[in-house]
Formats: sequence, C-alpha cells, structure tokens
Amino acid sequence: MENSSQSAQVPNGGENSRPIDKLTGFEVNERFERLSQKLDVFNRASWDEGIRSAKVREFFESYFTDLAKFRPVEGFTHRDFALRNASWYVADFTADMFEATDDRKEGFLDTYTMLRPGASVPPPEQTPERNASDVKRAAKFLGADLVGICELDERWVYTHNFSRMKLEEKPLALPEGLGWVVVIANEMDRGAIETVPSALSGSATGQGYSRDIIALLSLTAFIQNLGYRAVASLNDTALSIPLAIQAGLGEYGRHGLLITREFGPRVRIAKIFTDMPLVADKPASFGVRQFCEVCGKCARSCPPKAIPFGDPEEGPLTISNLKGVRKWTVEPEKCFKFWTNQGTDCSICIRVCPYNKDYSKLVYRIGRWLSGTGLRKLMAWLDDLLGYGKRRSPKSWWGRS
Amino acid sequence: MENSSQSAQVPNGGENSRPIDKLTGFEVNERFERLSQKLDVFNRASWDEGIRSAKVREFFESYFTDLAKFRPVEGFTHRDFALRNASWYVADFTADMFEATDDRKEGFLDTYTMLRPGASVPPPEQTPERNASDVKRAAKFLGADLVGICELDERWVYTHNFSRMKLEEKPLALPEGLGWVVVIANEMDRGAIETVPSALSGSATGQGYSRDIIALLSLTAFIQNLGYRAVASLNDTALSIPLAIQAGLGEYGRHGLLITREFGPRVRIAKIFTDMPLVADKPASFGVRQFCEVCGKCARSCPPKAIPFGDPEEGPLTISNLKGVRKWTVEPEKCFKFWTNQGTDCSICIRVCPYNKDYSKLVYRIGRWLSGTGLRKLMAWLDDLLGYGKRRSPKSWWGRS
Repeated sequence: MENSSQSAQVPNGGENSRPIDKLTGFEVNERFERLSQKLDVFNRASWDEGIRSAKVREFFESYFTDLAKFRPVEGFTHRDFALRNASWYVADFTADMFEATDDRKEGFLDTYTMLRPGASVPPPEQTPERNASDVKRAAKFLGADLVGICELDERWVYTHNFSRMKLEEKPLALPEGLGWVVVIANEMDRGAIETVPSALSGSATGQGYSRDIIALLSLTAFIQNLGYRAVASLNDTALSIPLAIQAGLGEYGRHGLLITREFGPRVRIAKIFTDMPLVADKPASFGVRQFCEVCGKCARSCPPKAIPFGDPEEGPLTISNLKGVRKWTVEPEKCFKFWTNQGTDCSICIRVCPYNKDYSKLVYRIGRWLSGTGLRKLMAWLDDLLGYGKRRSPKSWWGRS
Repeated sequence: MENSSQSAQVPNGGENSRPIDKLTGFEVNERFERLSQKLDVFNRASWDEGIRSAKVREFFESYFTDLAKFRPVEGFTHRDFALRNASWYVADFTADMFEATDDRKEGFLDTYTMLRPGASVPPPEQTPERNASDVKRAAKFLGADLVGICELDERWVYTHNFSRMKLEEKPLALPEGLGWVVVIANEMDRGAIETVPSALSGSATGQGYSRDIIALLSLTAFIQNLGYRAVASLNDTALSIPLAIQAGLGEYGRHGLLITREFGPRVRIAKIFTDMPLVADKPASFGVRQFCEVCGKCARSCPPKAIPFGDPEEGPLTISNLKGVRKWTVEPEKCFKFWTNQGTDCSICIRVCPYNKDYSKLVYRIGRWLSGTGLRKLMAWLDDLLGYGKRRSPKSWWGRS
C-alpha cells in the first residue's frame, strides 16, 4: 500500500477522461455512461420490485406518520423519532411544496429560486475573480460551512430526472448555458452521529439537509440578485460528490463519501448551477486515498457489508452505480435494506471513519496530518486502539433528563 | 444614578402588575392596556396616513424588486443590496406563502406547523422537567443560539391580529390553552452589523430572521411530534421582548431592545406557544438596567433621536407604544422614518451598544462583569475612549475583492 503513487496515475479513458481526473483520482474509461436519476436507490424504491417492499414503504412513511414506529429501545424512543422527523421539517416542506403541482421532489429547488425576480443585469465591476470571492463570502454568511467552485462536468449530470408521480424518466430540467457549479457543504452534528444506530442519529441527516437548503436557497437568491441565472439543487440533477471533489471540498473515501478536511465525512452537500463567470478551485489532496487503502475500518464496521474491502475497481456492482469508473463502489441495495430493516437511516461508516474528528482541536489536526504521511498505517491502528468511533448512548446525548 | 436600587422596587400596579415584574423591571400600572398588532409601526405603514408615504412603499418594495435602489455609495452598492435581499429569502418565502390564501403575513407560521400531523399523545415518561430539558436540547440542535421558557403572560399578547389584505383588525388566531412559551433567539452577524449604516448590515437582520425561522419551525415540529400542541410565531401575536426577558434570555436596554449575556442586543427573537407542560426559567440580571442609566451611547448615536436620554417613563409616546408601563420607550415613527429615508433598516443602536461584543473572548467577559459593578461609569467612558462601536467599511467586510 505504500506504493500507492498509482493513485496519481490515471489511465487514459479516451474521450470520457478529463485532465481533472488526475487530481480527483477517478479513473474513467471508454465504457463510461452517465446515470439516470431513475437508478438512484431511493427512486428505485418507487418502481423496482427488487427494492420496493412493505418495509420500504413503512420506512418512508415513518418520517411523516404519527411516529408509530418508535419502540422502547434506547435511541429509538418516541423523543428520538420526534427529533429525527423535526430535523427533516424544513427539508420536507421545501421538497414537497411543489410535488403536487410540478411533479418535483427530492430537492430540485428551482421553483423556489424563481419566486423572486433577480436583477436584470450584473454590475460592471463583477469580474470572475470578484464573483468567486463575493459568492464565497456570501455563502459563509448565509450559512454554508464549506464552499467551492468547479466548472460544470456533464459526466456527473443525470441523463434524466425522474417523475415520482408517473414513475418514469422525464427530461432533465437544467437550463442550457449554466457552465459553473458552486458546491456547498454543511456539517452534520457530531454528537448525534456518535449515537448511530439510532433514530436520533437520523436527526443529524435531516438537520444537515435543512441547513444546506437554507444556505442554498439564500445563496441562489444572492447570485440572481447580482444579475445572473442560478438553479439550486440538492440530490437531484447531478451527482454531488464528484462535483464537490472537483470544487476542492475534499477527497473520495472508501465508503463512497466525500471526506472533507474540516469535518471528515460528516457533511451534507448541495450545489448551484449558474452562468455567473467564476474561477474554479482545485481538487486538493491531504492523503485520504492512501489512508483509506490501509484503513478499511468502515468496510469492517458496515453491518450489511455494503462497503468494499479491496482496491478500487471498475463498476457497476448494481444498476445504481456508475459504469466505466474505477473507484471504491458501495452496494446501495445492501445499504438501503439495512436502513429499512432498522427503521431509520444508518451512518455507521461516518461514525467510525477516522476522519470523523473534531478538528477544532489541535491534537486531531496533527493526527490528520500524520494520517497523510508514511505513518498512516500506525495512525489507523491507533484509531482503533484508542477506541475512537465507538457508539455513544443516545440517552447521554439528551442530557440529564 | 448610583442609587438605582429603585429598579428593584416596582410599585404596585393593581391587577395589571405581576410578581415577575419585580425581576424584569417593567413597572405596569392601572392605566395599562394591551396593544393591537394594528398599531405596530410596520402595520401602520399600510393604513396610517401619518406613516404611509411613497418612500415607505419604495422601502418595502426594495426588498423584492430588481434592486433599483442601489447606488454607487459604499455599503449601498448592487452587491450589498443583493446580499441583503438574499438574506431575507427564507423569511420572505415562509411569511408570504400563505398571504394570498389565508391573509397571513409577518411570520405567523402556524400554517406551516400544521402541515404535518404530530403525535396523538405524549409518551408517559415526559414530565415537565424532562420536557423542559428535551425542548432546550432540541432547540440548540435545531439551530437556536438561545432558548428559554416562561409562562404565557397575556399582557404581552396582542388584542388582535391585523389583516394586511383588508387593512383591519382580525381576531387573534392563537388557540386557547397554550399556557407556555418557548422563546428562542439567534445571533445576528457581528461583522455585517459593524457596517451600519449600509444595505449590507440589513443582511444581518434578514439572516437572523431566516435562522430563527428554521429553528422555530423545526422545534415546533419536535413539540408536536412529542404529542403536544404548538404554534410558531415570529413578530406577530405577542410582543417578543418582554416574553424573552421573562424567559431569562436577557434584560431590557435603553434602546428598547433585549440585551443578552451572550450577544448583547445583536439577536432576533421568535417564540412558540404550547400546551406542553414545562418549567419556567427565571429572569436574570447582569446589571444592564444600571449600566444603561449611566451610558446612553445609543441615545447619543441615534440620528433621528428616537431613543430617550432620561429615566424610564410611562408611555405611550405614540400609539405604537404600550400604555401604562414605565420603561425606556423609543419613538418608532422617528426610527422607521430614518429607515425609509436611507432605503434599508438601521441598526446603529445595536452597533454602538457597549454590550455588542464578541463574548467568546475573555477580555469582553471581564468587561461585561465590570459593567455590572460600581465601575460601570468608567466602563461606559472607556468604551467610547477605546473607539468601540465605530463603523467598519462595508468593502472590508466583503474582503479582498
């Protein structure tokens, strides 16, 4: 694993590979095909007999119904589910508001971002450099923990959106000419994630998305107010993770998640497509790829064994995976089945990841640096030895009561 | 002013006074009358010829229109207004969504909080103590910077709501039996407030309300999910400041604003009315009343002289003020006229207030403590001498671009 300089050597994938792949580590070959949103495992739950079941329906309904699923097990009690569903409240009402009228769902938020007219023309002083600087300043102010910029890379854009009403593909709603992507990410609560498996830990997911949405909608309004076109997007329209990596927000981990310097894998991502002239950030490595090669803690800790143990391989493993990309690939079917069995989403791979640390503390910043050196194997071993990533009692999260 | 022990002596106001007034410092007498929302200066702008003008209409429209009002003056440029309006985005779309169908506006958010059914009955383990502890834990998690609890005090509840469609009073929509109030407050951005007067500083107001709304809606959903009734409210239905003080969030300042220990006057408030059995917090003093008596910096700094210089007096000064309460009372007409003249809201009194400090720093926590001692006059003098509260250049807020 020390000869992992291979991660810098990306074979030529013909017309499907791009220079930026050398920096992101994705190896894209001639068999590459863009994905349709229909194949996302959450959308498959609505039409694919292999996924869809009474349990799956129950799972989705538990987010809206009278908390019928809570049980007298710590972390899955009434108040745990009450908080989990409350944390999704903002995400839900924004995602659902235009479902009936526009057949839109799962975060395609352009309907909101078109509620107010923006400015008709941008001011002359707005250069690409100043736009990039202003949009980042505004993003932080409006509630984004992380922000980065990349050029639109069509490879990660879905071929089609999916209609949950008609259960069929529909044309992609993204307008032409939006050549830039502003990617934001928001931290998920560390304490709640520590309690996974629990309904309580699902609150960190909902709260992460709700925080994303507020920053996303406001920032989109800012860009429009400056006089440009902008479309807000959550998990629809394009794959967020490769765009986030290209925008310099972090690296790709064995568990298939974005690993950021600031919060490790403990983030939720959103993005804005815009025609605002910008300056792209560069993908930045701090040694995640090589660390994941020697660590494998997430793969060992995943109850349904949905995370691969070996080297990055060419997918797909299932129809939900990208074709013709060599990378670590999780099996979403195993993953999602585990969620539905326990009645809430799972974040065990986030909890146990050695990059899930509180980096406001110097000792962890030093640890992060060492994990990017030849000592990475020792660091992975120490992480286990010192008991990091263990589950915390949900009751203790709630405090004295 | 050193003999200000009078602030603890609240004369008996007959049936209008309450024991808690001894702790909050409000002196309520037999002439007290509850206010109607119609008399709020923002609502008066829609019906009162003394307030309403072309400039006022322009002022409100500038938040939604094509930024026609920006000008080539630092702090009032296109990007400053673009950010100000973006920061209001979430507050606007939640407040406006039911304006046309339900004649609701200005933050009465019960329509949202009724979108999802809560639980039908609370779990038996939820005692008032545990409810109070859980609701505070959930509030912090869901994005509230501060949270406190008080009993409903009808004196601060409006007699009527106001219909902006019909320009007349309408019955108060608050259901019976909601005997508790959970009050939350969110910090406004310090850097943006430093730039006031500017359109940029108005972004701190919008962002404060947007953050309030997210925490408010989610927390209301949490209470409902636990099995209780809960109604979310922003600036409608009741006066937020006396409720916030009764809930222990801070003290009343000369500028008529809540002064919190954590952020001084730099907060926006929201509240939830609920029948969830709770335990009330106590109003807590850290010497604000006595400090405001000797300071008066806000009164000296207010361009339209809307803030009083002298001792607390019995109102009202205008129809927007409470009758029969002895306290510092601002003149909302002068205040609001200044806003409309400059085309955005003003927060100069927040900027200059000696309690507007970054209390994460030890030196300011020491200063806050000294301001509550016999050295308060020296502290007020030092605050001026050291140049605190000066305006910062909006350009520097935006950074290098």
